[in-house]
Amino acid sequence: MKKYQLMAPGPTPVPSEVLLAMAQPMIHHRTPEYEALFVEVRAGLKQLFQTGQEVLPLACSGTGAMEAAVVNTLSAGDRVAVVRAGKFGERWVEICRAYGLDVVELAAPFGETVPAGRVVETLRREPRLRAVLAQHSETSTGVLHDVRGYAAATRGTDTLLIVDAVSSLGIADLPMDAWGVDVVVAGSQKGLMLPPGVGFCALGDRAWARTKTATLPKYYLNLGEERRCVVKNEAHFTPAVSIIVGLRQVLRMLEREGLPNVFRRHDRLARATRAGAEALGLELFAKATPSPAVTAVVAPPGVDSERIVAAYAEAHNITIAGGQGEMKGRLFRLGHMGYAAEFDVITALAALEQVLADLGQPVDFGASVRAAQKTFAEKA
Amino acid sequence: MKKYQLMAPGPTPVPSEVLLAMAQPMIHHRTPEYEALFVEVRAGLKQLFQTGQEVLPLACSGTGAMEAAVVNTLSAGDRVAVVRAGKFGERWVEICRAYGLDVVELAAPFGETVPAGRVVETLRREPRLRAVLAQHSETSTGVLHDVRGYAAATRGTDTLLIVDAVSSLGIADLPMDAWGVDVVVAGSQKGLMLPPGVGFCALGDRAWARTKTATLPKYYLNLGEERRCVVKNEAHFTPAVSIIVGLRQVLRMLEREGLPNVFRRHDRLARATRAGAEALGLELFAKATPSPAVTAVVAPPGVDSERIVAAYAEAHNITIAGGQGEMKGRLFRLGHMGYAAEFDVITALAALEQVLADLGQPVDFGASVRAAQKTFAEKA
Repeated sequence: MKKYQLMAPGPTPVPSEVLLAMAQPMIHHRTPEYEALFVEVRAGLKQLFQTGQEVLPLACSGTGAMEAAVVNTLSAGDRVAVVRAGKFGERWVEICRAYGLDVVELAAPFGETVPAGRVVETLRREPRLRAVLAQHSETSTGVLHDVRGYAAATRGTDTLLIVDAVSSLGIADLPMDAWGVDVVVAGSQKGLMLPPGVGFCALGDRAWARTKTATLPKYYLNLGEERRCVVKNEAHFTPAVSIIVGLRQVLRMLEREGLPNVFRRHDRLARATRAGAEALGLELFAKATPSPAVTAVVAPPGVDSERIVAAYAEAHNITIAGGQGEMKGRLFRLGHMGYAAEFDVITALAALEQVLADLGQPVDFGASVRAAQKTFAEKA
Repeated sequence: MKKYQLMAPGPTPVPSEVLLAMAQPMIHHRTPEYEALFVEVRAGLKQLFQTGQEVLPLACSGTGAMEAAVVNTLSAGDRVAVVRAGKFGERWVEICRAYGLDVVELAAPFGETVPAGRVVETLRREPRLRAVLAQHSETSTGVLHDVRGYAAATRGTDTLLIVDAVSSLGIADLPMDAWGVDVVVAGSQKGLMLPPGVGFCALGDRAWARTKTATLPKYYLNLGEERRCVVKNEAHFTPAVSIIVGLRQVLRMLEREGLPNVFRRHDRLARATRAGAEALGLELFAKATPSPAVTAVVAPPGVDSERIVAAYAEAHNITIAGGQGEMKGRLFRLGHMGYAAEFDVITALAALEQVLADLGQPVDFGASVRAAQKTFAEKA
């Protein structure tokens, strides 16, 4: 018996109390029961996004929510800047170009980040920039971009800051209103510990104002229409009912733990994972501020990282992730987000030692586990 | 104790074996386990859609899949005809107009349908029509449009036939390839007995050819990119994993029953429901070919149909649906689609008798149940 363990950077495991809530008989979304549920969900989402704005759940993946952010706030020909330092930065570029936007790329080598100073400079050089788009946590490289700095740079201008927080919401602190982020996008399957299938958009006042003049075509992802329904505890189109039912349980769990503790937990798990990898002599891929959601590790010289991913699966029934795009074969990624705790990290690292040994690498057994335990023993 | 019964025209109840499959621990969508599941799902969907084409599951509601059909096959300024005889016909119009299409409305009074002859005439008058869009089953009025006739009219022309089969797939016969329907759109929460959250699009060769020249902007709903992934047993973006897991169970159930039997079951349930309503002296709303998915019944003179819906809920814990838009207050709708069987119809009708009596209407108790039983006693 090898127990299945899901340790990829999303989808993350779903807590059993959430699975069981979702396994209750289907309810209809225009009933008092659903309305009471949705009232609670709306309130919980505002706390989670740290905003007074409505958070709009959409029946789509995180990419659909990214597209919603673009098509509701921009018009064809608009000039925008995209922070691009990984696969999801590339996705912003692709979405913007698909809709005929004029994209200025703020690129950094993968594994690094774009300093807020470059955003400041770009805004000075490009006063008509309509938006800056970025990831908070770039899942493909494991870095955390300086969204706080980007917001400081944009909020005194006419340029919106649109942030993909798919792998940072409920993982890294992102006080939307306090920092002045104009649009925050998230998904159900990372920090929210739910099955994939729901994306979220929250818009600040400046972004809502922009929706009045934005002319990109949209229907399914029309956020103004969605908000008109959400404030009445309805959805514009049939919502992903079972995931919304699970969401109520998740929001209760997060509230019980307390958001600051949730962030501290992820930070500890990430530090322990990094310490563990380094204790085995491995190089971390994220040179800049590493993300608390996922740790990207460079495969040892001469080892294709896909072999490491395969060995985790075949020998240990553990799903981790490899590198994406140009990073394929070079790195592997250990997720420690959402429904993840200390002994999950211990398991992932112990398995890593066994995987490396099986691949013929010299391994000091226990070294990475010990490093993680030392991290856990520190006062948080 | 009043047992909860979901008898609305979607979402429909989810069978417990499907709920339990979906309550299994989350799996990752890039694993051999998911691939094996998806191979089976792809094959099952082709049988269900009665097509040799790939059926593309998208993480969105049925409306998202409707939009996908439009944005992948059409270009701004294209002239299209929409069969409009209910709320979902209106939705086609709204989607087309949101994307700058030039819409010719083929309207019929709600409760009626548009004869294929009008499509033939329109094609003669408008030789440059790029597409005809219609519902198969119009959920809001309970009619079934003559998709077979529309297909006969369009398939010898350059005009595509795009059909919303959200409330007919797996309910009424719709042999896509045999009839020559160019695009079929469906959703997870009706005949497929799943939670809402997955939409489906299947395109025939003519529609795929059209995607090469269609210029409407799209990214999340780009079906060409989706197909490129689906044939490799992948998804372009994170799929709604739990619903796809449930879908495998549903496809097995449908195969066990046999598609002809599935259609026969729905036809019997619909006939029994109509017979039951008429036995109480009630008027059916669908004057034309009634849908086997849902029966729309006109409220007795002087009774607001919303009171009937409320009485079902409050006195009996049964969710049915009222009228939508201009039909609000005038009619109520009994769903008998998906996970629905004979005694569900008996329950719905027995409750109807009690509801009407409670609202002060004269009722011959047992009359509608008897009429339904007689229908069930007939050789199918």
